[in-house]
Amino acid sequence: GAFLHSGFVPLPEVGSVTLFNLGNYNFGMKEAQPEKDTSGPAKMLRLKEKYEDQGMRRSVEAVLLVHQHNHPHVLLLQLGTNQFRLPGGRCRAGEDEITCLRRKLSKKLSPDLQMQQAHWDIGELLCTFWRPNFEAYMYPYCPPHITKPKECKQLYVVPLPDKCIFAVPRNYKLLAVPLFELYDNAKRYGPVIASIPLALSRFNITFG
Amino acid sequence: GAFLHSGFVPLPEVGSVTLFNLGNYNFGMKEAQPEKDTSGPAKMLRLKEKYEDQGMRRSVEAVLLVHQHNHPHVLLLQLGTNQFRLPGGRCRAGEDEITCLRRKLSKKLSPDLQMQQAHWDIGELLCTFWRPNFEAYMYPYCPPHITKPKECKQLYVVPLPDKCIFAVPRNYKLLAVPLFELYDNAKRYGPVIASIPLALSRFNITFG
Ligand SMILES: [Zn+2]
Ligand SMILES: [Zn+2]
Ligand SMILES: [Zn+2]
Ligand SMILES: [Zn+2]
Repeated sequence: GAFLHSGFVPLPEVGSVTLFNLGNYNFGMKEAQPEKDTSGPAKMLRLKEKYEDQGMRRSVEAVLLVHQHNHPHVLLLQLGTNQFRLPGGRCRAGEDEITCLRRKLSKKLSPDLQMQQAHWDIGELLCTFWRPNFEAYMYPYCPPHITKPKECKQLYVVPLPDKCIFAVPRNYKLLAVPLFELYDNAKRYGPVIASIPLALSRFNITFG
Repeated sequence: GAFLHSGFVPLPEVGSVTLFNLGNYNFGMKEAQPEKDTSGPAKMLRLKEKYEDQGMRRSVEAVLLVHQHNHPHVLLLQLGTNQFRLPGGRCRAGEDEITCLRRKLSKKLSPDLQMQQAHWDIGELLCTFWRPNFEAYMYPYCPPHITKPKECKQLYVVPLPDKCIFAVPRNYKLLAVPLFELYDNAKRYGPVIASIPLALSRFNITFG
């Protein structure tokens, strides 16, 4: 009938995500992207300077998932031997989180050739962390009596297409780390990355 | 116009919840409800016996939230001096999770008088824990190579009405515990309850 096909493409169901095998993806290299801050104290100093101009920092990070051995793995950027990062970064003044995350993903992981670039679909919010002071620690809530948090960081699931090409800055390695390695392992990965298995546990995960 | 008012009541937005002050609620007592298992080993033995008949246990627990000092608090049942429980329990064979959680909430927290009983609206899934073996430990994922997990536990947000009356079995105390006390405190509360702050961090929480 006339009303059966409206051209409407259903969005993926809330709380569901399809993962593809790590072998579906191609990994190349591109120019190095040195981090702006070379130490924890330098990072806090820059955060403080920006805060005085622009107020609370908003930052966004992407959780990209693949499967191996029938178990979900998270793609992490490794810097040196023991620093791990999710792709993402700081929102510009007035820039919304989704636009920022697309920009950061393209910068960190897209090939330079436009025809090889994936379209980044940003999925559901996974969790939020607050930085109450100009200090390293962050919490998944704004602590009581903190009226001016210094940073709010949001993690989003970014569902991957069944195939695509990643280009990794040559000062990083891209790793696929299983959930069981991240869980309860804030010591190695920090509290934000270590929280991913729990935040993902509400999702209905299917292997494509 | 004729089409402006359809009688449709909008559901709360996905990922949002309104909390009311602890002082809005009334707490009474009712008959004691001794737990079925008096020890960890007894619990595992009963789990194993049920598993042989009915397969994997499905259990559900409710996260009831209030605010105090502008900070979210979780309602916990305390048993003795150092055991903490979320209201909830085991689904019967063929019983869906939502029906089970309504039944368990009525049993654990509703007054005996029907006219005082709240209608329990079950909200969003917060997180899921898996028990791979007949052992105490649970994880927020099914570990690789575990094809027959023994239990799957789901936590749901249960948004409270602005006022209601709770009746607490007299062998329990009902506590309102702040998120900052639960976070990173699996030692005292166990990994499931300690995970609530992180699982809630994606929610837009408003104080009503
Ligand atoms: Zn394997
Ligand atoms: Zn798209
Ligand atoms: Zn206070
Ligand atoms: Zn209702």
